[in-house]
Amino acid sequence: MSNKLNIGLLGLGTVGSGVPFILNSHKEKIQQVTGMEIQVTKALVRDESEKERQAKRFDIALTTDYNEIINDEEIHVVVELIGKIEPAKTYISQALEAGKHVVTANKDLLAQYGAELASLAQKNHVDLYFEAAVAGGIPILRTIANSLAADNIQKVLGIVNGTTNYMLTKMVAESKSYEEALKEAQELGFAESDPTNDVDGIDAAYKMVILSNFAFGMNVNLKDVETQGIREITTDDVEMAKKLGYELKLIGSSEKIGESIAVQVAPMLVPLTHPLHSVKNEMNAVFINSSGVGESMYYGPGAGAKPTATSVVSDLITIAKNIRLGTTGYRFNSYNYETKLANDNEVYGKYYFAFDVPDKKGQLLLLTKIFSSTDISFEQVIQQKTDGTTARMVVTTHAMTKAQMKAVTEKIQEVPEFHLLNTFKVLED
Amino acid sequence: MSNKLNIGLLGLGTVGSGVPFILNSHKEKIQQVTGMEIQVTKALVRDESEKERQAKRFDIALTTDYNEIINDEEIHVVVELIGKIEPAKTYISQALEAGKHVVTANKDLLAQYGAELASLAQKNHVDLYFEAAVAGGIPILRTIANSLAADNIQKVLGIVNGTTNYMLTKMVAESKSYEEALKEAQELGFAESDPTNDVDGIDAAYKMVILSNFAFGMNVNLKDVETQGIREITTDDVEMAKKLGYELKLIGSSEKIGESIAVQVAPMLVPLTHPLHSVKNEMNAVFINSSGVGESMYYGPGAGAKPTATSVVSDLITIAKNIRLGTTGYRFNSYNYETKLANDNEVYGKYYFAFDVPDKKGQLLLLTKIFSSTDISFEQVIQQKTDGTTARMVVTTHAMTKAQMKAVTEKIQEVPEFHLLNTFKVLED
Repeated sequence: MSNKLNIGLLGLGTVGSGVPFILNSHKEKIQQVTGMEIQVTKALVRDESEKERQAKRFDIALTTDYNEIINDEEIHVVVELIGKIEPAKTYISQALEAGKHVVTANKDLLAQYGAELASLAQKNHVDLYFEAAVAGGIPILRTIANSLAADNIQKVLGIVNGTTNYMLTKMVAESKSYEEALKEAQELGFAESDPTNDVDGIDAAYKMVILSNFAFGMNVNLKDVETQGIREITTDDVEMAKKLGYELKLIGSSEKIGESIAVQVAPMLVPLTHPLHSVKNEMNAVFINSSGVGESMYYGPGAGAKPTATSVVSDLITIAKNIRLGTTGYRFNSYNYETKLANDNEVYGKYYFAFDVPDKKGQLLLLTKIFSSTDISFEQVIQQKTDGTTARMVVTTHAMTKAQMKAVTEKIQEVPEFHLLNTFKVLED
Repeated sequence: MSNKLNIGLLGLGTVGSGVPFILNSHKEKIQQVTGMEIQVTKALVRDESEKERQAKRFDIALTTDYNEIINDEEIHVVVELIGKIEPAKTYISQALEAGKHVVTANKDLLAQYGAELASLAQKNHVDLYFEAAVAGGIPILRTIANSLAADNIQKVLGIVNGTTNYMLTKMVAESKSYEEALKEAQELGFAESDPTNDVDGIDAAYKMVILSNFAFGMNVNLKDVETQGIREITTDDVEMAKKLGYELKLIGSSEKIGESIAVQVAPMLVPLTHPLHSVKNEMNAVFINSSGVGESMYYGPGAGAKPTATSVVSDLITIAKNIRLGTTGYRFNSYNYETKLANDNEVYGKYYFAFDVPDKKGQLLLLTKIFSSTDISFEQVIQQKTDGTTARMVVTTHAMTKAQMKAVTEKIQEVPEFHLLNTFKVLED
């Protein structure tokens, strides 16, 4: 067998260019570890003239026609970095069917068609790896698949979207408003001009679907991930969280309850003593609770050209080793378990509620009645501020089910004078 | 091939008993992931009657004679959990020579004879894994060997000794003295009655030797690890560190400088903003600086029966997979690079010096002269306290070489009136 592993690269943008860069910079080590020379030989681009400089620098042939990659028998692996569903899905499927291994960082695609593509890869005895799809530079998927295979995971909590973590860090540390934080993130290139996928938690939900598959062996549909973004968070919430000893962060949570799991993305109050609390700015982290190891956390950059490209190259190294050992065609994640979703009566949590209520007597009594009629007990009730007419009240509760939370929310909304501003889950230490 | 993987277990103490416990609790998942049933069939113990209860519970045959394990052809893997050099070294060597795979958590042994044992394993086409030897429950070795193979590591900083991290956390958070913190750690079972290996940094040095081998492919001798423990740290140091915006922690550091590395274990001042700062109590963490990923950190329990046993079982799962794929006999760490140690002129750092000096005029001038004659400039000079006769002075410096640090230390020690109390490295953000 040849000792060269040739790559066809789809997309030669910022991240795409990172792949030949990392392969080149760490050439000696990669060759030593794999016994192979890994190189990008051809790249699919939209406009050849725009990418001439990179192509020349790394000795890559350019093409605008995917057939020139799929029909190139010298290409062993296709690396897909164009993102979104189509044409990525077609390209990857064709590559797998042509007997080429595939590495991708496409979280949107994997969250929606991961199971289908993994089966297609297995059917064609080729590898499909996607370490870079979740938490960029953090090798979390391989860690769960290999090292935590000996363990039973109970809960995965992730800060898996760098844009929103950056924004929330600024809102906390510099008392910026949501709009100011978004503007700054956009200026720094952390947020896109249309930030919907980030700020509404959709990007984080994609990643939690993939993490849930690795941690629990289950295939969760995107629509089953209850997803709440950060648009509604105000400086009042940020300040009150601080006063209570917490920090607001956008958390992806996937939790095992009996034989079922519950997956959610939402702003949560993270205690100062929780390891996730120390994850600032655009950094990501995945915190795992498991019966064997106990608590562990994996921290690193969630995006960026070099971290993402490094993860892609770690997948290429794994493929190179598999080829040499004759062990290609096994699933990235071999853990497979019947998918069951927990119902709202099984999922427990403490909550934070913020309301505007009329600033007059009897309101607290009414509030207490509503909560106690749903069997919810308060931990704290605080009047945060008042303008004489309207008071902002914050309530933190003891643990309740999600069903109770929804029931009390309905009851509150039936009182015309009460305006429920925000409900956030409170993480325990 | 049989679908059973039989284990001979050396040592059925706290950690030893954890192995059949984890294998049993996570049986279904392990079988699903490996396609094999992994079970402990025989255990070597010192006194059979003492271990009867565990043996019965997990259906393990007991023996006091190692020959009954080494000559048992039904046993595929020997798991060594008795610790120290002998007889562990002989047992492991005999197992490898008998064609049995070996899993061990023995850091003392690996730090001193790791290269020899790895060669012996390779010669006999069997596996030798030891994930549990460094940072107990954190899958750091496999992560470096697999996922970071695509990267060039520049620096590894580790909190790799739980006992001293627990003690220092108490000294910082509760203003305890070294003696009080040690007593508490001993009462809680975190520290042994003879705490030398922990408090003098020897245990951490073992782990840094192993980490250096994985991160840089180099074989460092234990004697080349400059090692300083925590015995000399006083409440004055803890308080001053806090005032300056740092926290004192025992840090293992392995750093690449050109083609060489420098390995060290010492108390260091960790800035509040550094991710290692959040690692409290008995928890461990390994922080990695690499050219591709940038900053990443791996956090979890460093010891304990269940975390350690879980790491051992993750090694057993890897062996089971290797057997099924026919890929046993490859080194755990295949990265190999010529070992070169940096000299003191190449290693840079900022330092903290604490002195007792006579409380009279002219002392600061004398101190300044000594430092500037070695080309060292101060960042801060603080008189921490005085009893009227003797003043405690603290100096923090700009970056200097280790050679300069040693030179200035000698000069200070030549002044009879100056009493140098402590010198600690200051980590940068």
